[in-house]
Amino acid sequence: MKKPVVGIIMGSQSDLRIMKEAAEFLETVKVPFEVTVVSAHRTPARLVEYATKARGRGLKVIIAGAGGAAHLPGMVASMTSLPVIGVPIKSSNSIDGWDSVLSILQMPGGVPVATVALDGAKNAGILAAQILGTCDDTLAGKLDKYKEELQSKVEESVQNILKKGWKSS
Amino acid sequence: MKKPVVGIIMGSQSDLRIMKEAAEFLETVKVPFEVTVVSAHRTPARLVEYATKARGRGLKVIIAGAGGAAHLPGMVASMTSLPVIGVPIKSSNSIDGWDSVLSILQMPGGVPVATVALDGAKNAGILAAQILGTCDDTLAGKLDKYKEELQSKVEESVQNILKKGWKSS
Amino acid sequence: MKKPVVGIIMGSQSDLRIMKEAAEFLETVKVPFEVTVVSAHRTPARLVEYATKARGRGLKVIIAGAGGAAHLPGMVASMTSLPVIGVPIKSSNSIDGWDSVLSILQMPGGVPVATVALDGAKNAGILAAQILGTCDDTLAGKLDKYKEELQSKVEESVQNILKKGWKSS
Amino acid sequence: MKKPVVGIIMGSQSDLRIMKEAAEFLETVKVPFEVTVVSAHRTPARLVEYATKARGRGLKVIIAGAGGAAHLPGMVASMTSLPVIGVPIKSSNSIDGWDSVLSILQMPGGVPVATVALDGAKNAGILAAQILGTCDDTLAGKLDKYKEELQSKVEESVQNILKKGWKSS
Amino acid sequence: MKKPVVGIIMGSQSDLRIMKEAAEFLETVKVPFEVTVVSAHRTPARLVEYATKARGRGLKVIIAGAGGAAHLPGMVASMTSLPVIGVPIKSSNSIDGWDSVLSILQMPGGVPVATVALDGAKNAGILAAQILGTCDDTLAGKLDKYKEELQSKVEESVQNILKKGWKSS
Amino acid sequence: MKKPVVGIIMGSQSDLRIMKEAAEFLETVKVPFEVTVVSAHRTPARLVEYATKARGRGLKVIIAGAGGAAHLPGMVASMTSLPVIGVPIKSSNSIDGWDSVLSILQMPGGVPVATVALDGAKNAGILAAQILGTCDDTLAGKLDKYKEELQSKVEESVQNILKKGWKSS
Amino acid sequence: MKKPVVGIIMGSQSDLRIMKEAAEFLETVKVPFEVTVVSAHRTPARLVEYATKARGRGLKVIIAGAGGAAHLPGMVASMTSLPVIGVPIKSSNSIDGWDSVLSILQMPGGVPVATVALDGAKNAGILAAQILGTCDDTLAGKLDKYKEELQSKVEESVQNILKKGWKSS
Amino acid sequence: MKKPVVGIIMGSQSDLRIMKEAAEFLETVKVPFEVTVVSAHRTPARLVEYATKARGRGLKVIIAGAGGAAHLPGMVASMTSLPVIGVPIKSSNSIDGWDSVLSILQMPGGVPVATVALDGAKNAGILAAQILGTCDDTLAGKLDKYKEELQSKVEESVQNILKKGWKSS
Repeated sequence: MKKPVVGIIMGSQSDLRIMKEAAEFLETVKVPFEVTVVSAHRTPARLVEYATKARGRGLKVIIAGAGGAAHLPGMVASMTSLPVIGVPIKSSNSIDGWDSVLSILQMPGGVPVATVALDGAKNAGILAAQILGTCDDTLAGKLDKYKEELQSKVEESVQNILKKGWKSS
Repeated sequence: MKKPVVGIIMGSQSDLRIMKEAAEFLETVKVPFEVTVVSAHRTPARLVEYATKARGRGLKVIIAGAGGAAHLPGMVASMTSLPVIGVPIKSSNSIDGWDSVLSILQMPGGVPVATVALDGAKNAGILAAQILGTCDDTLAGKLDKYKEELQSKVEESVQNILKKGWKSS
Repeated sequence: MKKPVVGIIMGSQSDLRIMKEAAEFLETVKVPFEVTVVSAHRTPARLVEYATKARGRGLKVIIAGAGGAAHLPGMVASMTSLPVIGVPIKSSNSIDGWDSVLSILQMPGGVPVATVALDGAKNAGILAAQILGTCDDTLAGKLDKYKEELQSKVEESVQNILKKGWKSS
Repeated sequence: MKKPVVGIIMGSQSDLRIMKEAAEFLETVKVPFEVTVVSAHRTPARLVEYATKARGRGLKVIIAGAGGAAHLPGMVASMTSLPVIGVPIKSSNSIDGWDSVLSILQMPGGVPVATVALDGAKNAGILAAQILGTCDDTLAGKLDKYKEELQSKVEESVQNILKKGWKSS
Repeated sequence: MKKPVVGIIMGSQSDLRIMKEAAEFLETVKVPFEVTVVSAHRTPARLVEYATKARGRGLKVIIAGAGGAAHLPGMVASMTSLPVIGVPIKSSNSIDGWDSVLSILQMPGGVPVATVALDGAKNAGILAAQILGTCDDTLAGKLDKYKEELQSKVEESVQNILKKGWKSS
Repeated sequence: MKKPVVGIIMGSQSDLRIMKEAAEFLETVKVPFEVTVVSAHRTPARLVEYATKARGRGLKVIIAGAGGAAHLPGMVASMTSLPVIGVPIKSSNSIDGWDSVLSILQMPGGVPVATVALDGAKNAGILAAQILGTCDDTLAGKLDKYKEELQSKVEESVQNILKKGWKSS
Repeated sequence: MKKPVVGIIMGSQSDLRIMKEAAEFLETVKVPFEVTVVSAHRTPARLVEYATKARGRGLKVIIAGAGGAAHLPGMVASMTSLPVIGVPIKSSNSIDGWDSVLSILQMPGGVPVATVALDGAKNAGILAAQILGTCDDTLAGKLDKYKEELQSKVEESVQNILKKGWKSS
Repeated sequence: MKKPVVGIIMGSQSDLRIMKEAAEFLETVKVPFEVTVVSAHRTPARLVEYATKARGRGLKVIIAGAGGAAHLPGMVASMTSLPVIGVPIKSSNSIDGWDSVLSILQMPGGVPVATVALDGAKNAGILAAQILGTCDDTLAGKLDKYKEELQSKVEESVQNILKKGWKSS
């Protein structure tokens, strides 16, 4: 596999259930990535090392997912000027996801985190590809094609209902 | 001025009060941009034109701000595979900003919007520069320098309190 | 079947589970309708076509249901001056339905969406019939009769409890 | 003035500050209306009389605004099968408007209220006209023209920013 | 059975599941009561009759439970000066109970509803007895005794943990 | 003045601004009352004394107001079987009043607090009178008359708008 | 066992399910503790006795857990100047835990409660040990070691994913 | 001044407005402390240094205040086993304080932060003293005396109202 340009990290191995959707999308569009666990609260030294060395190692985008008081995305963003995508996760200890969303979204001026929807790891993968696509026309082309596939699926639904009728669903 | 690579759009001219912070940052780091009004609800045809032609016109990132039921960022994202950064705005008709935040953040799988904090237009500008910095080392260097400036300001505060004492604030 | 006067649309086929209650009511009162999928985010061109041609095709009311960052009802309303009824749906990717409710309800001045309760597709069907009933006395009469049926069911409950006692429930 | 076809009612005279925007719009498009106070909690008998006689008096749509535990729209809807538009008002005794919104929006199956945004009386007026426009082509035409005016104002903003630059705002 | 002095009403028979806890408590302290369904939205005429005749029929307290946009308690309170106890119910169409709570609690000045906790029908029964106990010493004595029983149950738990240890639970 | 039958207490003297509306209403209907400060958190011994001696001193109803983590109403209710009316207060240290509302409303089974709206002290006064009115026909008569006054004020508003027109407001 | 220095109390035996995590941690680091039930609302006298005698009996920290309108931690804090740690519990009668969190957290100036996350009893145990560790170097050493264990578990996850790949999870 | 045992830190100098209340209390009870700015997001290296060296420098308790996505308290807690007290601050970029509260409170198992009320810096100061008081009887004595002062102020209010009457407030 080629050297990863996207780093997918998460606060706990249990978050992989959600975060693997980011990896799956990147695999589809052939963007090389790495997947690992970095806990802001349990491995702060590892966090510092990961964030400060990311650019040097060739990463271009970091996707960070976490639940509850989710500090991982914002803390990574404090230590690198790579774009950081934050994925709020509705973990078991979360208050309906509000804590994860607000902890990631509400960053102070100067240190952005590109936040996606609650449990929205797939969109984090797509967004990472869109970012890389700003200077990679082949990748941008794949993303346009993906948009067409989304459209086709809707058109299938349309035909489906036309054929079977709305009552059959 | 050079051809714009970032499009800063907003739902209403009154949003410029907030959105100009994005423009100001991009000006600082010399990223060419354009600023205009595109209303999803009042000028849907203009929205379609803006979004579908964005890539062709040379834009690489779109920053879209809106308040209330804020559909602009998501609808732009539905019509381009450029990265779209959404800025929720606490407008006068908003319920404490919650409507803007949720309308922008909670996009369905397939169509990401990179959401920043409520009224966080400055961070939208920084994020746009970070995205462009993934293939522009000079720009990336400026962002690293900006991080140092943020740090310096904190250090000034530290000295300030040391000199004048905490009571003087 | 007669030419449809109500268009029932939804962002995803999975919303049919909720939205079919609107269709069922309209069937009861013999208002001709159509049911299809239009995704604001995945098929924006179809959205434009549907909304701009609705009046010309003879539609008089549009019922649009969507979940999460629910832009479908508001975007349809931006492109037609037919009354648009919005149904917020508590989909799997929703934060307890708040995102759907606020994305549909909090439309800016100039572009109303007649919002009903979360998952309230049945009420959307009734409201559509009430709107058509403003110039159709036969239909209005059916709606008055429906109100009597609602009342009868409550009266049955009253008799039920009187006969069997409150403990038996 | 012609016999009113829209009844604009509100829980308290102090709500007129908000509700008059509905009246102003209807005046613009020459839809005859009446404006009065009906309090669900202080004049329940008047509420019953107003709601039950509305259709007989020639009303075709009722717009009802109320704040706090806002029962007026829903209770009117319980006693007439005319379409009822509810306007949640952020009154002084409201918890940031949430109580008004939820009390009006979350009606049970069988009794819809067409809810608009918090303090969205203008949209209530437009929606009433849209409803009447379903069988009045002249009125429908005015609404299409109104949509064009909305668009024109945005286009003025666009020109404004082009001329004066984004910094001047 | 003696003539009822407490009326327990609810918006739907399905609420009996919750509301019967009020009845069970009143049975325990031998306060005569009645249980029935009165729907504000489906049987408004029955609501008027129930509320306006309550005092004349000998009722002294009314307990009203409802879910969603819960108008029953407030509307009863608008038509009688008997104390009305409101029980917000987390029904299936409720947004986590917030709509029921706010629709019942946030009554305007002049028309109080004594609101208890979400699904707190048992406490509604106790409160009704406390109200009647203000001029019935025998009943007040029973309530004091009930307080002692609550205390005894806690003391049993204390002994339980002492004996079996905290690990066994 | 006659021996007080209603005790109006509050957590802090600053709450008197809100709580005096309860006193004013009781004065109007000539129900004797007392007003004092009892802080659950700063004077717990005074709380115990107040609550446990209330019935013995002739009190029949207690109205307790508090803000933030508002424990006063519930703690009084834990030590007396008199009806306790809780008034949530939006104090300066409150999160928009939600803390006060939930701390007072959400009492566990066995220990009710009759909660009124945020800052709803007037309704607390009326509710106290309604409770006493369950065995005092003169007082009940005054409450019926108060209801008529509420109605008259609405009717004045109706005449006001009829005379001056809705535009003059 | 040695004389307890930490008192773990809770409002109901059913809370032991959550609260035993505090006990388990203290057992691990060999801090002597006691576990019992003290209900603010059902056993107010026991609450007074427990809180006022705590310091005299040798307790140094109190951990108090409760759900709903959770008054136990704050009321204990009102009667002792020992540090009190509050654990909000998402009990069955709670509105998604918000009531417990706000009732415990939002204490007025003068009477702090050290609040931990919803259902965060384990952290309450750790915090109690940290407090005692401020003058017990052996205990502080154990806490440092515990931090290393947390770190090791993350490192195991890292190895796990490296070995098995992210797809296998 | 003696060597500080409490470190009061905050994310921004503007937070000093709130945080100085912690310092003022510690000054009153003669606990030596230091006050400085440490920004998690702008000076992450300073954060690491502060947190990891805190115990070695003789600190025994850390009070950390921050607003918005408030990561400072939790990140300090991740790097020291000293007790960390978190003060959520309602800063200008906060959504009514909810983001600050949830970012600080909802820490994962293993890494507690002792959270106090929104803007509750005074209580943070008191809590720090209570923690130190667990092995300092003189300090514990001062805290008991402080409790008496709180009580005296309430008693003054009581006398005030008795003398001047409730109407004069």
